Amino acid sequence: MQISLNEAADWLKAQQDVLLLCHQSPDGDCLGSGAALCLALQKLGKRARVDCCDPVPPRFAFLFETVAAQDFVPQTVVSLDVADEKLLGALQAQYGGRVQLSVDHHPSNTRYAQKNYVQPSASATCEILAELLPLMGVPMDLPIATALYTGICTDTGCFQYINVTPHTLRTAAALLDKGVPAAQINHAMFATKSRALLRLQCAAMQALRFYHDGEIAVIPLSLDMLHASGATDDDTDAIAAIPRSVEGVRLGVTLKEKGPALVKVSLRAEQPISAAEICSQFGGGGHPGAAGCALACGLAEAEKRFVEVAQQYLEGKK
Amino acid sequence: MQISLNEAADWLKAQQDVLLLCHQSPDGDCLGSGAALCLALQKLGKRARVDCCDPVPPRFAFLFETVAAQDFVPQTVVSLDVADEKLLGALQAQYGGRVQLSVDHHPSNTRYAQKNYVQPSASATCEILAELLPLMGVPMDLPIATALYTGICTDTGCFQYINVTPHTLRTAAALLDKGVPAAQINHAMFATKSRALLRLQCAAMQALRFYHDGEIAVIPLSLDMLHASGATDDDTDAIAAIPRSVEGVRLGVTLKEKGPALVKVSLRAEQPISAAEICSQFGGGGHPGAAGCALACGLAEAEKRFVEVAQQYLEGKK
Repeated sequence: MQISLNEAADWLKAQQDVLLLCHQSPDGDCLGSGAALCLALQKLGKRARVDCCDPVPPRFAFLFETVAAQDFVPQTVVSLDVADEKLLGALQAQYGGRVQLSVDHHPSNTRYAQKNYVQPSASATCEILAELLPLMGVPMDLPIATALYTGICTDTGCFQYINVTPHTLRTAAALLDKGVPAAQINHAMFATKSRALLRLQCAAMQALRFYHDGEIAVIPLSLDMLHASGATDDDTDAIAAIPRSVEGVRLGVTLKEKGPALVKVSLRAEQPISAAEICSQFGGGGHPGAAGCALACGLAEAEKRFVEVAQQYLEGKK
Repeated sequence: MQISLNEAADWLKAQQDVLLLCHQSPDGDCLGSGAALCLALQKLGKRARVDCCDPVPPRFAFLFETVAAQDFVPQTVVSLDVADEKLLGALQAQYGGRVQLSVDHHPSNTRYAQKNYVQPSASATCEILAELLPLMGVPMDLPIATALYTGICTDTGCFQYINVTPHTLRTAAALLDKGVPAAQINHAMFATKSRALLRLQCAAMQALRFYHDGEIAVIPLSLDMLHASGATDDDTDAIAAIPRSVEGVRLGVTLKEKGPALVKVSLRAEQPISAAEICSQFGGGGHPGAAGCALACGLAEAEKRFVEVAQQYLEGKK
């Protein structure tokens, strides 16, 4: 059932002992949403905590600095930025079918929760929460504003992507009014990389391959390249933007070797090409501009299969 | 003489045959300012044109698509985003001492014009113009809004830098309200690079050197590296952000070999270090976060001299 934002606010105000769930491979938006709503609920005198099947990457640890650690048996289960129950990962076994409210901005949200507030026009789930929290009667303070800003800036590539609306920018302005150290957060999120990541980027650029008259660019990222650079798996996220950044490229493909027969694909597309449509052919999904899927094969075979489907898709668009 | 924004608006409305001057090596902010004010003056029925000692880089050509080409003997000379008359380059001989109004956001503006409106709290000269144009009675239309957005997004690194205020974001939101294709502009400005630039970035990353316990990072960019990559001189701007992007680096130095005895320095600094203060020791200037200067020597000697001064500066800050 889709509910209104007011209904979501009223319902949350009536809950106790709230567990907030993030998606696997957590990013700035689900963690920022989790931290912000957790702080808000704690301010209202409730017990609340955030959980995720994967650990919080170190660069997001600051989001939880003022969140009180609370232990309790959950009476209420809320998911944030989780488009599909499957994305709860290892927590799906425990909470699958038990999510009472899902707050999300993914158009592909499967409406798996009892109550759903899904707003695809929002750039980030944090943009939704910036509207929801005041409706819950929670005054915006610096830690909450910082968490919300982090989610919005990470999900928009620092206000760079097609999902940015005038409302997104006005929401961010109101957060900056609260004193959010935006430049510091932006630098940590976008402009800081380890020497290992720098080596990995360099290797990735050298591995770039082009197809379809230069409209498709592919980086096949092998485990060997990852290990040789000393970069972590989390670092590979920063590679996904490279292929599409080359002049003339409409479809940027990053193939990440995860094991002997597992390749994860990150796809970026130029309008009107839909990355989500292409990835759905491999059982994946996402947004029109950015989507992902997985192929159960080796790296070379994955490149062949994926490029074939991508070429057919581009031909069909002509 | 510093005048108010209202005075600047009234004065501009009373002028005829207006020449708008940009600084040498023109960027998105001076060109966006020039295009926007030129369109505004032409809308008011005046003759106006933009001039610069250097050609407009191809990626900014779209700014001038709807600007009417007009030939006339200037009665009024206005400079936009030009902190010092020297920065008029080859046009200084002709217009030095003749600039009647300077509109600028650089704190280092030397107040060389007869009338100066300098607002250092503005992220970009385009942010000032977004306020000035309505005072001149010019309604905001799509081409003007697009030019202003381009200046603001390029001067803020797409809303990433310390110069972004809530007012900057609200100004950008109002421009997006007019239908500015922001994502398309952002992609062209920030996320598109030639294969040659990709090669240059890779070479630059491999040339990175660290000093002062990794707090200073230096890229010495030789003419050989530039030629081997096939990149243009304009491409080298994209290199300047790399050194400071490495974890732990507080001072990022890019040294660009321009000739046998000329090296241009691009400096990026972390607060409270002032890039402008360091560059002023070599006769240069700029902002606290980003500044530049030139050294009349070879690349190796420039690296030695600059790093020595930078190290002394960091020692003094301890």
